[in-house]
Amino acid sequence: MSQPVRIAVIGHAFMGAAHLHAWRTAPRFFDLPRRPEVALLVGRDEARTRAAAEKLGVEEIATDWRDAVTREDIDVVDICTPGDTHAVIAEAALAAGKHVLCEKPLANSVQEAESMAAAAAQAAERGVHTFCGFSYRRTPALALARRFVEEGRLGEIRHVRAQYLQDWLSDADAPLTWRLDKETAGSGALGDIGAHSIDAAQWVTGQQIDGVSALLHTFVTSRPVSGSAEGLGGAGDVTGERGPVTVDDAAAFTARFSGGAVGVFEATRFALGRRNANRLEINGSRGSVAFDFERMNQLEYFDGDDPQQTQGFRTIQVTDAVHPYTDHWWPVGHGLGYGDLFVHQVADVLTALDAPEGARPDFGESLDVQRVLDAVERSAEDSSRYTSVTR
Amino acid sequence: MSQPVRIAVIGHAFMGAAHLHAWRTAPRFFDLPRRPEVALLVGRDEARTRAAAEKLGVEEIATDWRDAVTREDIDVVDICTPGDTHAVIAEAALAAGKHVLCEKPLANSVQEAESMAAAAAQAAERGVHTFCGFSYRRTPALALARRFVEEGRLGEIRHVRAQYLQDWLSDADAPLTWRLDKETAGSGALGDIGAHSIDAAQWVTGQQIDGVSALLHTFVTSRPVSGSAEGLGGAGDVTGERGPVTVDDAAAFTARFSGGAVGVFEATRFALGRRNANRLEINGSRGSVAFDFERMNQLEYFDGDDPQQTQGFRTIQVTDAVHPYTDHWWPVGHGLGYGDLFVHQVADVLTALDAPEGARPDFGESLDVQRVLDAVERSAEDSSRYTSVTR
Amino acid sequence: MSQPVRIAVIGHAFMGAAHLHAWRTAPRFFDLPRRPEVALLVGRDEARTRAAAEKLGVEEIATDWRDAVTREDIDVVDICTPGDTHAVIAEAALAAGKHVLCEKPLANSVQEAESMAAAAAQAAERGVHTFCGFSYRRTPALALARRFVEEGRLGEIRHVRAQYLQDWLSDADAPLTWRLDKETAGSGALGDIGAHSIDAAQWVTGQQIDGVSALLHTFVTSRPVSGSAEGLGGAGDVTGERGPVTVDDAAAFTARFSGGAVGVFEATRFALGRRNANRLEINGSRGSVAFDFERMNQLEYFDGDDPQQTQGFRTIQVTDAVHPYTDHWWPVGHGLGYGDLFVHQVADVLTALDAPEGARPDFGESLDVQRVLDAVERSAEDSSRYTSVTR
Amino acid sequence: MSQPVRIAVIGHAFMGAAHLHAWRTAPRFFDLPRRPEVALLVGRDEARTRAAAEKLGVEEIATDWRDAVTREDIDVVDICTPGDTHAVIAEAALAAGKHVLCEKPLANSVQEAESMAAAAAQAAERGVHTFCGFSYRRTPALALARRFVEEGRLGEIRHVRAQYLQDWLSDADAPLTWRLDKETAGSGALGDIGAHSIDAAQWVTGQQIDGVSALLHTFVTSRPVSGSAEGLGGAGDVTGERGPVTVDDAAAFTARFSGGAVGVFEATRFALGRRNANRLEINGSRGSVAFDFERMNQLEYFDGDDPQQTQGFRTIQVTDAVHPYTDHWWPVGHGLGYGDLFVHQVADVLTALDAPEGARPDFGESLDVQRVLDAVERSAEDSSRYTSVTR
Repeated sequence: MSQPVRIAVIGHAFMGAAHLHAWRTAPRFFDLPRRPEVALLVGRDEARTRAAAEKLGVEEIATDWRDAVTREDIDVVDICTPGDTHAVIAEAALAAGKHVLCEKPLANSVQEAESMAAAAAQAAERGVHTFCGFSYRRTPALALARRFVEEGRLGEIRHVRAQYLQDWLSDADAPLTWRLDKETAGSGALGDIGAHSIDAAQWVTGQQIDGVSALLHTFVTSRPVSGSAEGLGGAGDVTGERGPVTVDDAAAFTARFSGGAVGVFEATRFALGRRNANRLEINGSRGSVAFDFERMNQLEYFDGDDPQQTQGFRTIQVTDAVHPYTDHWWPVGHGLGYGDLFVHQVADVLTALDAPEGARPDFGESLDVQRVLDAVERSAEDSSRYTSVTR
Repeated sequence: MSQPVRIAVIGHAFMGAAHLHAWRTAPRFFDLPRRPEVALLVGRDEARTRAAAEKLGVEEIATDWRDAVTREDIDVVDICTPGDTHAVIAEAALAAGKHVLCEKPLANSVQEAESMAAAAAQAAERGVHTFCGFSYRRTPALALARRFVEEGRLGEIRHVRAQYLQDWLSDADAPLTWRLDKETAGSGALGDIGAHSIDAAQWVTGQQIDGVSALLHTFVTSRPVSGSAEGLGGAGDVTGERGPVTVDDAAAFTARFSGGAVGVFEATRFALGRRNANRLEINGSRGSVAFDFERMNQLEYFDGDDPQQTQGFRTIQVTDAVHPYTDHWWPVGHGLGYGDLFVHQVADVLTALDAPEGARPDFGESLDVQRVLDAVERSAEDSSRYTSVTR
Repeated sequence: MSQPVRIAVIGHAFMGAAHLHAWRTAPRFFDLPRRPEVALLVGRDEARTRAAAEKLGVEEIATDWRDAVTREDIDVVDICTPGDTHAVIAEAALAAGKHVLCEKPLANSVQEAESMAAAAAQAAERGVHTFCGFSYRRTPALALARRFVEEGRLGEIRHVRAQYLQDWLSDADAPLTWRLDKETAGSGALGDIGAHSIDAAQWVTGQQIDGVSALLHTFVTSRPVSGSAEGLGGAGDVTGERGPVTVDDAAAFTARFSGGAVGVFEATRFALGRRNANRLEINGSRGSVAFDFERMNQLEYFDGDDPQQTQGFRTIQVTDAVHPYTDHWWPVGHGLGYGDLFVHQVADVLTALDAPEGARPDFGESLDVQRVLDAVERSAEDSSRYTSVTR
Repeated sequence: MSQPVRIAVIGHAFMGAAHLHAWRTAPRFFDLPRRPEVALLVGRDEARTRAAAEKLGVEEIATDWRDAVTREDIDVVDICTPGDTHAVIAEAALAAGKHVLCEKPLANSVQEAESMAAAAAQAAERGVHTFCGFSYRRTPALALARRFVEEGRLGEIRHVRAQYLQDWLSDADAPLTWRLDKETAGSGALGDIGAHSIDAAQWVTGQQIDGVSALLHTFVTSRPVSGSAEGLGGAGDVTGERGPVTVDDAAAFTARFSGGAVGVFEATRFALGRRNANRLEINGSRGSVAFDFERMNQLEYFDGDDPQQTQGFRTIQVTDAVHPYTDHWWPVGHGLGYGDLFVHQVADVLTALDAPEGARPDFGESLDVQRVLDAVERSAEDSSRYTSVTR
């Protein structure tokens, strides 16, 4: 390894912890051109940030993200904050010549995302790279699905069936968190988890969503403003004040893809019993694949070219040395976990830093997801009428 | 058993064979008030009908369905023909005082279905019953799901997720059969299999679909007019003439239910590898159920009232003596097959014949499915705009 | 069809009902050389037999099995009684020139089975056939597994893993039925369900079991002598008398096969939650198959010749026209049930009646299962010492 | 955290890498009383060890394990070498007052293991702790299974069904590695993976194995001495020399447990298609659990106290905050991977260092596994005769 890459991580909650784990772990399993060092952890509350830094093994902290941008020794700004802060941080970092890795969704509106993508395009001319944290692309099984599409194994794609089902809001008294506030989060299930489905569907198929017909719904319109968090949900204080939920609880839409496929998407946090069922099934004229993150080390694959009597969905344990990412880890059958996806993401980012073509998805590609989200919202407001994605 | 019930079966293809098997088998496993006898088999081609009758064990045949209606000794007319003939046969039979069991979908249009339902209502006043062959209601697992809803085990229902996935048209050179002709079949995947999903979803939840936003699509617009059939599909004669496919290959729609649930429906014959995946998942505030006909003897059930550390979807083997229908068959764990659903249907019909309230679904209830199908088609023609079901 | 085949069924409980269903149904779905007619139903209790006959659609009854043997118009004697009566009935029937279909296990001891096999061999010379009811051979998925072995798809077979898990005796107060009495049943889980595993394992692999090392165990040594039956189990009268359980509750043994494979077998009625998990997995040098009767329409198949990145167990829906038996039934994906296996069995029997080579398994082949059962019992009595099967 | 704990890791192959990852990661997710630092990496080949140390982030290396023992600044010696070196290293380390974490199986013979356990007992009196790397105990799902047993949820345990199925030796030309050499590895599938099953079965049930009846088999008796490794297997040089395989390829045994349960065990590396199927099923009088490492984040649980109509195996996503270990990681449904087990192991070790009772399993408890392995080998050599475990 030549010179180190110095990173500032902004945010130290769920995503911040995942990213820090990744920066620390990636060089131990992957052969990387540059050695990463997390030099700075930024959080608004000094005491909590200091505690997090100590726990997560970062020496320096700051309470203002501008410190990350102005410091000359920082090479990469890694944004793990809610969506309403992405644009301002990212654009400042790019202006300062920092590479930026930004959590998804890229922004809370197409306007912001366009501005970010424009800034990224300018920065790219100076060799500065942008990345967006669609981490599920780093799942070996989904990366294998994409490889199968590229190899022509699915033939002409006809159906895309994407569900992202969670249940942490099923309890009508779970507390009102920032994820339920439109100002901070942009949207609800749609942007938080539906965005993952949109990105995965477009990426795996290699097709764009042309238009959508959508329905958004909020089942529980007010929730306790305080309570004890547990995971993403928790138990609200039912004796106290309730505040309005200003985002969607569930999103459902049909879609048409640029290559002729028909899509059906659903994102919800009310699918009781489905903890994190991020599912994607694609049916083509020659083959099909199906994935469910609750069994993240497996990909279902149907090969229509198999002899008729042996046709069936194969359950591939995507842990073999020939599968994406997995040769860096354990022997076959010894699966990976959620946290490992972030290691892959960071390894891809570090590998791309000195590459002219950069890594995917950059801000430009992630803007596209934002445009689909926007079409979904516009369709939902227009009686579900079919609405083209504006590009 | 008092007097026998004499039945005329119209049609002897896939459905006719299933019904005949059922009439013959039901009295051997169920205690029925009346003993069924299939007295007449009707088909248009005399030789083929005679061969079928011999194979299926029916003594008399006719080539005109009117014979079934005019004969005094016939009590039940069982209609197993394509949808374009349902109305005329059923109405004639009802006028002649015959009970009628009619395959689904009830008709090829709302207009026909309304006429049939009106005739059924009149006949009902004279103690003549009508039934529609939504046979999946007779699946023990789905009947158990409905029981769970009735027992309040699911709480407030939020999500309905229905897919009916087949793949027998994946091959673009499969032959053009009557199921691909709008005049005969009414619609494609929508009416043939989507109708089952609509009926099951409304029946299990006890809610009506208020409105839909729909997309219909035909992937393969022309097919060989001749070829060798195999199952529902087969191999077309690619050197010969091709004719137009005039129905949908796939249907997808979102829906709003009368009780506030959000629905997502998909029906297709192009989901390569999914042979007959008739799936229904329902998520409520207290519990969830999930079903897939490819494992028809199982119901997945999630009980939100379980202690947190033991929560999970249960795989219930719906073969226990306490489950619907199954006490009439084998010991627990010795599952049933597709053909047995028709035995249940016939047992329900025979039990209902002398009951004032009749059996479900009657023509009136089945008209409702037709109205949803109609709303789906209207929405699809109107840029997927949200379209209320007209009742 | 030329002349009919007239059958006398001895026994009208679980197995009797299954056989009667099969005789009635087979000619409706299969093209058979002879038309079956059940002419006589035999049971010891006249009233109950008469009720059963009426329900099951048989006109004549008898209370002495000898009537079935002496009547000239009977062609086939179908024995559905407990094991202690098999030998005497079968031998008398064969002596009278009747074909015999006998439920499994063939007998309660090797001695009886040898005598039956000898009688069968003599009868065979006169064109009289014998069959044993190892009905699971008629499962399309297991028949497909055997076909795969014959086609060389598994290569050299190394592992056989057979489990037959039920749980209807888990309740220590379930009543003492004839299946728990050594005199009547011969053995417990071993002969009742383990026999199925032994037969299936030898049949699918085409190899014989050379020797075994076995353990038999009775968990609950006494049970209420009376109670209400439900399925195979039920609720015993805990206030009344208890009697001794004289058979094994569970059997476990390792085995060596003639072709070099290593086998592990387990049969139990105490695997709480496993209703009827009749499982068989075979691993070879080129491929593997796995089956579980709780999903009887599926076969798992692993093809070691697949490219490495796409290797995985395929879930074959064994309902395709190219699969064993299934072309006689419904379209692909519309699965079969337990009762349909008996239809296949009867179809095979009827087809074999006029064939010189007869059907499999005949008494001779079924004697072999008895010899393995005997070796298991001898090993268990000899401190699990490896015990060769005496042939 | 007070003072750091300084660790020397001996070995840097598969297990060494897993342990190093764990030492580095544990303090970032767990609140530990002591902060771990890996101070030394030991390997026999200097260049390869130096490369590994650089990759894995360890500053100092040594080529003689004695350096780890003699250095005063080392607190824990972590032994990740083949079994033939465990005893000598561990005993020297204990003599030097170092805590020892030793990979499984503890040793290659009972004699060695007894010596190690004796040394551990002496050391324990001086507050020096020993641990053995039965890492699967750290799987949240298996830890939950154990909790269920402790809570009485399974009732009286009747059946233990343990399989550890791999397939990396299915190819008869895979190369001869140290794992196939009795001198180095002690035994084959039995000690390598069967030991995990034995430990897990005894630990989860809380019962000891009293005796066994066993069969060991070697399918492929010679293999190429050189070749290219891939994962645990690889492609041997078929044109070169072949050497003898001196260990078992597969082990199968029945067992009796101290509490009356019957066990069936199987360990093999020839189960083609089963990549790492470490399975454990336990059936009790009140409940059952089933686990398969290929879906490591799930536990199947059957509760016999459920109402009859809702009974079924629950698939618990063992990723909830109330489950073992998982509250330290991600939100519910975001599963863990194989590498994370080692993080749990190290967290348990570090927590136990200052606790009088130490951690489990210590050498004494691990000796017990060795005694079972020994009984298995003795039984296999004695015609599978039932052989008591000598304690």
